[in-house]
Amino acid sequence: MPIIQMNLMAGRSVEQKRRLAAAVAEAAAKALDVSPQTVRILIHELGVEDFSVAGVTAGLKAENEAAARTHSRD
Amino acid sequence: MPIIQMNLMAGRSVEQKRRLAAAVAEAAAKALDVSPQTVRILIHELGVEDFSVAGVTAGLKAENEAAARTHSRD
Amino acid sequence: MPIIQMNLMAGRSVEQKRRLAAAVAEAAAKALDVSPQTVRILIHELGVEDFSVAGVTAGLKAENEAAARTHSRD
Amino acid sequence: MPIIQMNLMAGRSVEQKRRLAAAVAEAAAKALDVSPQTVRILIHELGVEDFSVAGVTAGLKAENEAAARTHSRD
Amino acid sequence: MPIIQMNLMAGRSVEQKRRLAAAVAEAAAKALDVSPQTVRILIHELGVEDFSVAGVTAGLKAENEAAARTHSRD
Amino acid sequence: MPIIQMNLMAGRSVEQKRRLAAAVAEAAAKALDVSPQTVRILIHELGVEDFSVAGVTAGLKAENEAAARTHSRD
Repeated sequence: MPIIQMNLMAGRSVEQKRRLAAAVAEAAAKALDVSPQTVRILIHELGVEDFSVAGVTAGLKAENEAAARTHSRD
Repeated sequence: MPIIQMNLMAGRSVEQKRRLAAAVAEAAAKALDVSPQTVRILIHELGVEDFSVAGVTAGLKAENEAAARTHSRD
Repeated sequence: MPIIQMNLMAGRSVEQKRRLAAAVAEAAAKALDVSPQTVRILIHELGVEDFSVAGVTAGLKAENEAAARTHSRD
Repeated sequence: MPIIQMNLMAGRSVEQKRRLAAAVAEAAAKALDVSPQTVRILIHELGVEDFSVAGVTAGLKAENEAAARTHSRD
Repeated sequence: MPIIQMNLMAGRSVEQKRRLAAAVAEAAAKALDVSPQTVRILIHELGVEDFSVAGVTAGLKAENEAAARTHSRD
Repeated sequence: MPIIQMNLMAGRSVEQKRRLAAAVAEAAAKALDVSPQTVRILIHELGVEDFSVAGVTAGLKAENEAAARTHSRD
């Protein structure tokens, strides 16, 4: 019955999601010794302001890095 | 305190979501013998490339089925 | 495909969980007009220190209420 | 490793999400005595028909309240 | 950042969980073209009364099947 | 309505969970400008074989580190 929820940054192509679903289902079924037919995968995509590490969202981090690059060029 | 998260394929109407919330809250409250007021339900909708069974996304499955129908008409 | 995750306080009997699963699956299938066979339900049970409202865990709230009852009897 | 998933009603500004991420990461790291660097936060936003209390979605509740205000003015 | 939550029936061995984590992390990292270092996997195990299909818990299903086997031997 | 799910390594004391719930609820309510009363927090604890980074469970990582320490003492 593996039910797998994957949280990803938004922006993956259809092709990438299909490759991901196929690869993870196969890996899980083999490792658990269950039929692939029992594996369900759900993908939740997150915007850049909806994921953070150490309290800094991905959006803010990108902004900070862009600003740092600009400063380092001064 | 039941907190219920429901993952659905995207595309339900407002009417259907309201019916779903009402029916599930009533069923859960009755089965658990708690006040309906304590039941919270969250719905997450998934796109066709965000749900897969056996490594095949709902989108790919629909494509495959459409192709099979076309071939069977040849 | 409804995949439903239910968070409950720990301590439900087997009988209650079976009644809950049956009732919620039927309610969801009917409201969404899908086969009950497509409904999967997962239950996560939480201990009294693992659920809180307004920053007060269920365990602490019970302690506070017990203390209040004792005081009101003084 | 705290991995924190926050379900919010949709509509928060970028500024509010950044403030939320910063504040919750700091609070969790301090309370758990771990490095903020280990704290990951994921935000899931819900539409008004995707959250319900007592079987009444936030959207329906708002409609009911608007109707009640209208009636009380009659 | 893939953060992957896997719901499994309880009872997997340590060896199986390690194999599962390694295989799924590798599959996800390759399909998404990200460093394996960014992949986090969380496993939630479910008891037989905590998972149901079509409103029948895994525990009840096993009971029903055992009873059917007994009857078919009569 | 913030509903917050926190995944932690198992082993926190009651005291730590209560401090965590209080601190996170206060931080979230302030950042979102909502009443603390609306904040619900759910804690899920994970065993050392149920969390992995880069395909290596916390249990395996601890074993590897213990083995490395032993070797470095040789």
